[in-house]
Amino acid sequence: MSQEQKIILSGVKPTGRPHIGNYFGAMKQFVDLQTEYRSFIMIADLHALTSVTEAEILRRETLDVAIDYLAIGLDPERVTIFRQSDVPAHTELAWIFNCLTTMPYLARAHAFKDAEAKNREVNVGVFTYPILMAADILLYDPDLVPVGQDQKQHVEIARDTAEKFNRLFGEVFKLPEALILDQVKTLIGLDGQKMSKSYRNTIPLFADERELKQLIMSIKTDSKSETEAKNPEECNVFALHKLFSGAIIPEVKRRYVEGAIGYRESKEILFEQMNHYLEPLRAKRVEIASRPDEVRAILAQGAGDARAVAEAKLAKIREAVGL
Amino acid sequence: MSQEQKIILSGVKPTGRPHIGNYFGAMKQFVDLQTEYRSFIMIADLHALTSVTEAEILRRETLDVAIDYLAIGLDPERVTIFRQSDVPAHTELAWIFNCLTTMPYLARAHAFKDAEAKNREVNVGVFTYPILMAADILLYDPDLVPVGQDQKQHVEIARDTAEKFNRLFGEVFKLPEALILDQVKTLIGLDGQKMSKSYRNTIPLFADERELKQLIMSIKTDSKSETEAKNPEECNVFALHKLFSGAIIPEVKRRYVEGAIGYRESKEILFEQMNHYLEPLRAKRVEIASRPDEVRAILAQGAGDARAVAEAKLAKIREAVGL
Repeated sequence: MSQEQKIILSGVKPTGRPHIGNYFGAMKQFVDLQTEYRSFIMIADLHALTSVTEAEILRRETLDVAIDYLAIGLDPERVTIFRQSDVPAHTELAWIFNCLTTMPYLARAHAFKDAEAKNREVNVGVFTYPILMAADILLYDPDLVPVGQDQKQHVEIARDTAEKFNRLFGEVFKLPEALILDQVKTLIGLDGQKMSKSYRNTIPLFADERELKQLIMSIKTDSKSETEAKNPEECNVFALHKLFSGAIIPEVKRRYVEGAIGYRESKEILFEQMNHYLEPLRAKRVEIASRPDEVRAILAQGAGDARAVAEAKLAKIREAVGL
Repeated sequence: MSQEQKIILSGVKPTGRPHIGNYFGAMKQFVDLQTEYRSFIMIADLHALTSVTEAEILRRETLDVAIDYLAIGLDPERVTIFRQSDVPAHTELAWIFNCLTTMPYLARAHAFKDAEAKNREVNVGVFTYPILMAADILLYDPDLVPVGQDQKQHVEIARDTAEKFNRLFGEVFKLPEALILDQVKTLIGLDGQKMSKSYRNTIPLFADERELKQLIMSIKTDSKSETEAKNPEECNVFALHKLFSGAIIPEVKRRYVEGAIGYRESKEILFEQMNHYLEPLRAKRVEIASRPDEVRAILAQGAGDARAVAEAKLAKIREAVGL
């Protein structure tokens, strides 16, 4: 590992079974980044508390997300994977940042505005979580923070906060840049809408064969017969072929255009291809999940490593503010 | 110490030199309570960050407030005196409580409404500090929280938060009661208004003889001559006699009523009495301040003791919410 290696920090929220949209939109990219960057992957269990109020669910999903990432190839020898709540420096720095951030500034954050617009009794955590996120980020001096386009504002809030702190208390923080993740444009769900848990149209990444087949067979198509010519670009099944069917994509495409394939057969081929792609991930997940103590040990190791970095940083921060 | 001994937690903000209003209104009462209760005295340096942005000032005032309390008789063998920032559990629990507290509920807190009414760019710390205060309190399972009448709402917020948590996650918190401190009605300042730093009319508790004399001689009175009868209850000087002049109060009072004392003489007598009362505290403060390392050791010991209690409690809280 060269001294020049740049640092990234990614936060992942434990929110149940990941689907293939999560996989291509973020998870896989985090794993790909581990070879080039010194990576911290933080399981944001404290953030999850803004919406989860069942202890058993939070505990299970926190462990599950670690298993998910290990199954898709995160290398714990290379990456520091840790639970946010194992590093007390996060909430302490968040408090310090609370005292630097004005109410009007924070009220402009998207997520809060969205939640308020829905007229819910928004909790204070929903309001202040961009500050906790700024703390999450800035404790690790990352060069880059990989986020989706919709999360870009959080990196901006972290930068603003770092700048304000540096101005008031001296140069303590490096200003991180957002690394915008590739959007997987083709990732539509079973019903043709964007794949999203809230639409209940997802294909879980670790679905077993039976569930996978059933979901693929339920993908919505039009009612063209086997012999009619079809536009592959308008087909929800073909959209998934493009991600999973590799070398045979041109052949499938040709048969669409020529009216030489029915949707049922296209789905059967897709199932074979997806199953071939996903089977090793699934098998690895089963294997890892059978050894939860090893996963806990990896998280404990990660917690120790993250704490060492975060506490060294926090010591400088405390010195700067007078604690 | 019997098992039946009740627990109290008091928070004190490091905000510069205490005055005799602070002393009689709170500090002395905290010290008096130490014999009856198992006491935690928390120096609220994290709360101070909502207004202090000079590291040197915060550091000095945090040490100073410890010295002040030791000088007036706080017994570190008996009381756990500690810095809030030495116990990371406070901000972690505050985050958990953020996720339980609705925005409208918190917006009703007095201090925030007052600050907003003044149309300042209020910081998020000013908004959320009642939540941090709820965490400060509830980590130590106190039976009683000694507060001034104006701070009663904070204990109510702590109770509400504890109740909501218990309802959602099971019985974890004891509901503390406010112990309303005796209001020292006579505590008016040099100018006849309530003694308060913001009016610049205070007599510092540890003022040296020269400053003390000068301040007492500057107390506002009417312009009655030595031989005119005076109503002691309308005299700012006599108000202080009532606190400091013990056995000679009836004699001074008689001379007021009979027109047998001038204000200058009354002030000179008051100075002798106050100086007699305050001199031992002042001397003890000088002695303690000359050994700052001992004070730091007391705070380190307090931090260790407080952490042990707070972390044991936090472990139960984390278990209950699923962290």
